[in-house]
Amino acid sequence: MHHLVAQLTIEEKVTLLSGASLWNTPAVERLGIPASLLTDGPHGVRLQLDFGDHLGFNQSEPATAFPTAAATGSTWNPSLLQEMGEALGRESRSFGVDVLLGPGVNIKRSPLCGRNFEYFSEDPLLAGALGAAWVQGLQSQGVGASVKHFAANNQETERMRVSAEVDERTLREIYLPAFEHIVKTAQPATIMASYNRLNGVYVTENHWLLEEVLRDDWGFEGYVVSDWGAVSNPPKAVAGGTDLAMPAADGHADEVLAAVKNGELDESVVDRAVSRLLTVLDRLRAAQQAQESFDRAKHHELARRIAAESTVLLVNRKQVLPLDVQDGGTLAVIGEFARSPRFQGAGSSHIVPTQVDNALDAVKAATSREVVFSAGFLLDGTEDDALLAEAVETARNAANVVLFLGLPDRDESEGFDRTHIDLPAVQLALLQALTAVRDDVVIVLSNGSVVDLSPAIGKVGAILETWLGGQAGGSATADVLFGTAEPGGRLAETIPLSLADNPAHVNWPGTPQKVHYGERIYVGYRWYDATERNVAFPFGFGLSYTTFEISDVVVAVADPAAAKAVVSAVVTNTGDRDGSEVVQIYVGDPKASVDRPVRELKAFAKVHLAPGEKRTLTFELGERDFAFWSPKGWLVEPGEFTIDVATSSRDFAAHEVITLEVPSVVPDLDADSTLGDWLEHPTGAAVLHEHMANQDAPTTAAMFADEHMRTMVASMPLRALLSFGSSVDSKAVVADLLAQV
Amino acid sequence: MHHLVAQLTIEEKVTLLSGASLWNTPAVERLGIPASLLTDGPHGVRLQLDFGDHLGFNQSEPATAFPTAAATGSTWNPSLLQEMGEALGRESRSFGVDVLLGPGVNIKRSPLCGRNFEYFSEDPLLAGALGAAWVQGLQSQGVGASVKHFAANNQETERMRVSAEVDERTLREIYLPAFEHIVKTAQPATIMASYNRLNGVYVTENHWLLEEVLRDDWGFEGYVVSDWGAVSNPPKAVAGGTDLAMPAADGHADEVLAAVKNGELDESVVDRAVSRLLTVLDRLRAAQQAQESFDRAKHHELARRIAAESTVLLVNRKQVLPLDVQDGGTLAVIGEFARSPRFQGAGSSHIVPTQVDNALDAVKAATSREVVFSAGFLLDGTEDDALLAEAVETARNAANVVLFLGLPDRDESEGFDRTHIDLPAVQLALLQALTAVRDDVVIVLSNGSVVDLSPAIGKVGAILETWLGGQAGGSATADVLFGTAEPGGRLAETIPLSLADNPAHVNWPGTPQKVHYGERIYVGYRWYDATERNVAFPFGFGLSYTTFEISDVVVAVADPAAAKAVVSAVVTNTGDRDGSEVVQIYVGDPKASVDRPVRELKAFAKVHLAPGEKRTLTFELGERDFAFWSPKGWLVEPGEFTIDVATSSRDFAAHEVITLEVPSVVPDLDADSTLGDWLEHPTGAAVLHEHMANQDAPTTAAMFADEHMRTMVASMPLRALLSFGSSVDSKAVVADLLAQV
Repeated sequence: MHHLVAQLTIEEKVTLLSGASLWNTPAVERLGIPASLLTDGPHGVRLQLDFGDHLGFNQSEPATAFPTAAATGSTWNPSLLQEMGEALGRESRSFGVDVLLGPGVNIKRSPLCGRNFEYFSEDPLLAGALGAAWVQGLQSQGVGASVKHFAANNQETERMRVSAEVDERTLREIYLPAFEHIVKTAQPATIMASYNRLNGVYVTENHWLLEEVLRDDWGFEGYVVSDWGAVSNPPKAVAGGTDLAMPAADGHADEVLAAVKNGELDESVVDRAVSRLLTVLDRLRAAQQAQESFDRAKHHELARRIAAESTVLLVNRKQVLPLDVQDGGTLAVIGEFARSPRFQGAGSSHIVPTQVDNALDAVKAATSREVVFSAGFLLDGTEDDALLAEAVETARNAANVVLFLGLPDRDESEGFDRTHIDLPAVQLALLQALTAVRDDVVIVLSNGSVVDLSPAIGKVGAILETWLGGQAGGSATADVLFGTAEPGGRLAETIPLSLADNPAHVNWPGTPQKVHYGERIYVGYRWYDATERNVAFPFGFGLSYTTFEISDVVVAVADPAAAKAVVSAVVTNTGDRDGSEVVQIYVGDPKASVDRPVRELKAFAKVHLAPGEKRTLTFELGERDFAFWSPKGWLVEPGEFTIDVATSSRDFAAHEVITLEVPSVVPDLDADSTLGDWLEHPTGAAVLHEHMANQDAPTTAAMFADEHMRTMVASMPLRALLSFGSSVDSKAVVADLLAQV
Repeated sequence: MHHLVAQLTIEEKVTLLSGASLWNTPAVERLGIPASLLTDGPHGVRLQLDFGDHLGFNQSEPATAFPTAAATGSTWNPSLLQEMGEALGRESRSFGVDVLLGPGVNIKRSPLCGRNFEYFSEDPLLAGALGAAWVQGLQSQGVGASVKHFAANNQETERMRVSAEVDERTLREIYLPAFEHIVKTAQPATIMASYNRLNGVYVTENHWLLEEVLRDDWGFEGYVVSDWGAVSNPPKAVAGGTDLAMPAADGHADEVLAAVKNGELDESVVDRAVSRLLTVLDRLRAAQQAQESFDRAKHHELARRIAAESTVLLVNRKQVLPLDVQDGGTLAVIGEFARSPRFQGAGSSHIVPTQVDNALDAVKAATSREVVFSAGFLLDGTEDDALLAEAVETARNAANVVLFLGLPDRDESEGFDRTHIDLPAVQLALLQALTAVRDDVVIVLSNGSVVDLSPAIGKVGAILETWLGGQAGGSATADVLFGTAEPGGRLAETIPLSLADNPAHVNWPGTPQKVHYGERIYVGYRWYDATERNVAFPFGFGLSYTTFEISDVVVAVADPAAAKAVVSAVVTNTGDRDGSEVVQIYVGDPKASVDRPVRELKAFAKVHLAPGEKRTLTFELGERDFAFWSPKGWLVEPGEFTIDVATSSRDFAAHEVITLEVPSVVPDLDADSTLGDWLEHPTGAAVLHEHMANQDAPTTAAMFADEHMRTMVASMPLRALLSFGSSVDSKAVVADLLAQV
């Protein structure tokens, strides 16, 4: 318990449990408890000095708009995320910010979620690794992270009321592990309780989630803050484990105080929350250094480097990319996005950038070739045949064509979900017109969540997915186009062939108050693999300007009984340019007592190699990497496991099978155990065989002797089976057999 | 209350609540209460005079083995099912049977369910219509039906313990309506409570299902009998609404008696159950006529007629069928199933037939052509190259080849589920060998649930799906092959392209104790349509030996406010043979407040026409045909509905759109209502607009004025929205606005 708790009055304590304003926590000057400042993130610092709001509507102070999580998720580079976190920490401190609201590590359940651009991945391991690095970087500067949105807040539709109906295994294996990993490895200052309900209970009031899982299981030491306006019932939220309700809300303190006074809420629960808040404040202040300002130019350069490393090269027919920087004739740049970049999403993460690079200027600056521009379409979606015709003419006469397409602001945003994944009609019309006149168009995409690429696939020269690349995205795109930088990204989410293929399709966005996670653990590539569906581009996929070979794969099981394995592989840059490869390790458990995904990402490493250079990579796999969530906790079952060494969820360099000899868990037999249970139980099977050999009820004995019949009745409780066609007291017989076991 | 209840002692009453033996209920001679006899069905009477069992293991008295429900489901002919029910009633009475255990109307959720052959369809309307006709036929003879397995018993794996986790809308729209329709239109004597649990509660103990839904909502007047051995806790089962526990079980009466004596169970609940049992017995006895025997030959002929009408012609390239009965050279009959027919499934429905026709003999008897036979493969799956080579040689030299393939007994059965949908390897090898030498092979299939037909599609001349066609199936197949009978069947279940495409694929068969119905209402064609997946053969599909035209489709909405419509269409036989067409009416509700299937079967009619003959069909659609299940019950929303007049779920003769002007249900506004709720509420919207025009909080006012921002914040409770960037007491403001509304 924090030492100041005992010195606070109950009135002071309840006041500390909600904001003093939109962004500040209350101070208690008498005891030297300072106010603290929380500010939106996570891709930049959105400090609103004047009149604030929480949806990016009003102005904020200029700060670096780093690439969004859709982009940084594609870097597969935790140390780069750590650098970004450090930079955000410096900016935060320069503004006096104590807690930056991020990172967002929700799983991309559906491509339609309006806030997907703020989230890293469809895979919990990748999201957790990147999120933890970001948090470590940020918190190294004395700025607390607020990992959000905890939990199962995977849609915007009805986000403040909807109950996510998710079974525990799905939570433990898919929706919670990113949070768990960050808590265990980076101990974030705060976790943000999300708006929605989880299995009927508001997350802000969900004691199981906020106390039993987050603290008791994972060891979280920080405080839980509500998403802005998420608390519906203040006393229940405090009791459930929400330590701080934001923002300021009339009546919050009064309601909590009344609950304490009438005995509904124990004062010790209030003390617990206050103690957590004060402890975090102490830790942050202790780590904070004076930071008057930050180096805008340096941060912009970092944003540019991250944006290039976020860029995923999906298609590169006949090596149309990189473009020649000097020769090759006229270069046509087409598409309004080249001039008016879309580099961030709408809502609470909306930053006023320190500067904005557009790709058109960056391309012009980078090359000595003639560059001609044609807008091609209007961002508001209005048809303009003249613009389109001009673009086609521009394209026809150029040596190379780079076409900038993407989603306008109002197509994806916090606050609502998309209803389709198509590019706007005016852009599709332009694409069709251009691909009709040439087949080597280079597409550059700006979008926060996946779009249907089938209109482009097979008809264009190259596709570069730049996501929402932050304020330096334009320069980074030029870097990648000319090969000054490599396209360093790999997909952190599957691009499906069609919206109808997505795992949540028939369970999205739910009835007004409930959404069933009917696909359970089969999210992202886990779904496409389980349902054997083709995809446009698989999870983990991305081309390079060079080529790699993965060889000498060895999977060693040092101690089979301990569920530990070491995978090693040699990666060689076999091309003639520098480049990065992301080696991905997937684990599968083909025969288990429960259904399991075909394969799951369990480790990865990104390696940068010069031409001809090779490196040996080593990956350690432990218990958790082989385990599934059972009603009794994480469980590894003995038997064969597959290890895929891969460059995407569908491109494999090696497929190995190992055998783990961990102890098998045999369920105890009881009065309701089935014949199948008995036959699988080592002692039970022996006892039962002896009993059946000695009894004379003809039907059951005959059934038991016949293998086909045994299969038919395996799911019957032994009790029921023995009672058929027999006058024995089967319950007594089973009790006797149990005694023998 | 039955008048005898008052005269029974409590000891006598509790004794009446469970069986006296495997198949008999107890008598109370003192009061003239007779024993009654229940016997397995539903495709024939399985009377075991000697030592009984409930899994078809021991012998029973010879009775007609009618086609299984997989077959009869494909007839789409309720009056034929009624005839079959009447015949079963006569056979039952000749054996002294009071209750025949059937029909099985569970929905085919997955093609893997081992008991699918006992169920009609993936569609509840079709299953209900056929089941009701069967019950009416049976009960007209004074024999009670026992509609099973109620409910959500859609798999064999762990069937005695597994909890089907199904939301109420899915139950009401998919898994319950067949039962509901039968109860409401045919008032079956009994309903059989299934083995499984439903949402955690054993069905036998499920008061909501057995009392609130079955009796209070639907008006069921019969008694509920447990599936054999399903009762786990006798007092809880009686309290839950299971009136009769079968079979005899040691201790059942004692446990119920003890519960009554110690006050756990109210005696009135026991009285209620006894009264229901006695009332049903009275009704059955009153309707029963003396029936010494039945006409075996006549019933066999009926079985033959039903089997032909169950046969679905899936492929008929170049009109290879019907075969010429006189000319055309040697006819090769290949495949062991032609000689050793598989005509019923394994388990409780297994009948000792009065005679069995095999197709080989029937073909020989029907034609003057030379018929040669080759077994081709062994039923036990052992490879036999000589058999295969001989078959190829036989095929090569024949004018026509008919190849009999199917699933052997041990591939599908009550008691376990399949793990794949492939034909056995030895049969696939034979198929491949034969299609390599000729492309006009006629395939005849015997299987109780769908098999993967991709190895045959495009490579054979014809495919006839005969399902498990009963004891006269062999003759019926010959009838159809030669065109003496038409292939009268239409698919009652979709045949998918691949197992992985099926709706339950990632939720099958669940963890040992739970199975999530994650696909919810999207079962069968509802799933394939919603996920835009191609199928091998769609629901409702089947070819004919003649051709039909559907014309003059008119959809009339007499009174739009009453949700009633009449669809009429003219069907013409445009070919030169007699034949039947099944006209199917599908309804869709493209814009609703909840997600709805693209289309759902709401009416159908089978019509038999001579060449050139035409008939006008009329279908009445009512409220329920446009409704979905909402938390407040069945709900029709105003707006556009689609009406497809079709010959399968994917073959449409007409697509019409109608508009219903039923009153719309506006949810009441409350303190937690969102901005979106307010804006959709006619009065609320006006009140809110006025309020916003008069207030001066700049952020919320500006947000409200901007359409894009309004979209972003539509899901926020008004209370939360008004509190942002404002110091007003938003709860008080909302209360004031509510008062104005």
